[in-house]
Amino acid sequence: MTTDVAELTARMREFARARDWEQFHTPKNLAMALAGEVGELVAEFQWLTADESRRPAPDELARIRGELADVTLYLVRLADVLGVDLVEAAHDKLDENEQRYAADRYRGSARKAPHQT
Amino acid sequence: MTTDVAELTARMREFARARDWEQFHTPKNLAMALAGEVGELVAEFQWLTADESRRPAPDELARIRGELADVTLYLVRLADVLGVDLVEAAHDKLDENEQRYAADRYRGSARKAPHQT
Amino acid sequence: MTTDVAELTARMREFARARDWEQFHTPKNLAMALAGEVGELVAEFQWLTADESRRPAPDELARIRGELADVTLYLVRLADVLGVDLVEAAHDKLDENEQRYAADRYRGSARKAPHQT
Amino acid sequence: MTTDVAELTARMREFARARDWEQFHTPKNLAMALAGEVGELVAEFQWLTADESRRPAPDELARIRGELADVTLYLVRLADVLGVDLVEAAHDKLDENEQRYAADRYRGSARKAPHQT
Repeated sequence: MTTDVAELTARMREFARARDWEQFHTPKNLAMALAGEVGELVAEFQWLTADESRRPAPDELARIRGELADVTLYLVRLADVLGVDLVEAAHDKLDENEQRYAADRYRGSARKAPHQT
Repeated sequence: MTTDVAELTARMREFARARDWEQFHTPKNLAMALAGEVGELVAEFQWLTADESRRPAPDELARIRGELADVTLYLVRLADVLGVDLVEAAHDKLDENEQRYAADRYRGSARKAPHQT
Repeated sequence: MTTDVAELTARMREFARARDWEQFHTPKNLAMALAGEVGELVAEFQWLTADESRRPAPDELARIRGELADVTLYLVRLADVLGVDLVEAAHDKLDENEQRYAADRYRGSARKAPHQT
Repeated sequence: MTTDVAELTARMREFARARDWEQFHTPKNLAMALAGEVGELVAEFQWLTADESRRPAPDELARIRGELADVTLYLVRLADVLGVDLVEAAHDKLDENEQRYAADRYRGSARKAPHQT
């Protein structure tokens, strides 16, 4: 079955191949590219209040959407070159988090759970 | 039709709801959380050579997989609270990039395309 | 004349030399290390309100101070290996910003100035 | 005695005051601004090899110098609004690191020291 993430992965792989960019797409370089894009995303929110960030103006939202896309593309590509199944990894982590942050103990609290031993 | 990203989105939404964490999940805060996780991901690669980053040791790869999962979860959650369709946004950006970086002009080159006007 | 930053620079240089770590301290790697530390710093603030961030609890402030130190050390080291005078560069940028953001035009406004041409 | 960092701190404080920007300069917002600038810095190095990053082209170096300046300015400003002495904090951390990474045990090794208990 084809899925969203598998489709994006395949499209990014072909995009890089067609431009002979695999040579640049080491995990190290892609992690940096991802960090650069997340920096641009954070910058969109830096002077907004919490409330303003919930309702960005249309032109802000368009820029944010573009940055979210850039982050997604590099994330998908990084997982691909590492052979990581991003969706499976995310579900596994959510399984862990559901254990680690028991709903009744952490309700309404932003404190961090101690690391599991 | 249910898809990968829609499923993750729904699961994260319920995870936040069950803990009464929607109050913390402003776009501003989630963008910061995403930046924090990407910082941890980048740190995994900081002292590796390009080649080492292609073949991380099993324990490194396990940590990297966990960080990729954290990044994915916050990214999906941030898009959700902003009402952005992440997969559609990514495909739109790839459409743009395919125009902007014509394969024959940018083959083997890491230089940045000028911004479209 | 010896200054704050020159002293830190010299101490970091000797710290790296004594451990034979110059081989790891390429600008690329140090930029990543800096990004990793800034990620940890941002994470300290991610769930705080604007007001809470102004008055962190003593244990939070101690952690934040440690992260600020890590960021400073990598920043100083990165500038050193690139041969950049950090203090001079910062003053030059402030000169620019004073021009770019005329006090009377940008008073009380968080909007970004257009880039100079 | 006036020092480099104290001078930059005073100049940034006045820059913000003259524009009535103190309202935007919460620690939370400044940490985000710092992360945004570090993202731009990392992006300068993302496609460079280790060797290329040691000898950036003149126009690259000029851009990198500008990004280092931006990072420095926000770092100095963030420390100021938190009342942290950046230089003292950095020396304290270097004291710790000299203990934690004994030169004879960590010579030539990029592995991380276990956290002190």
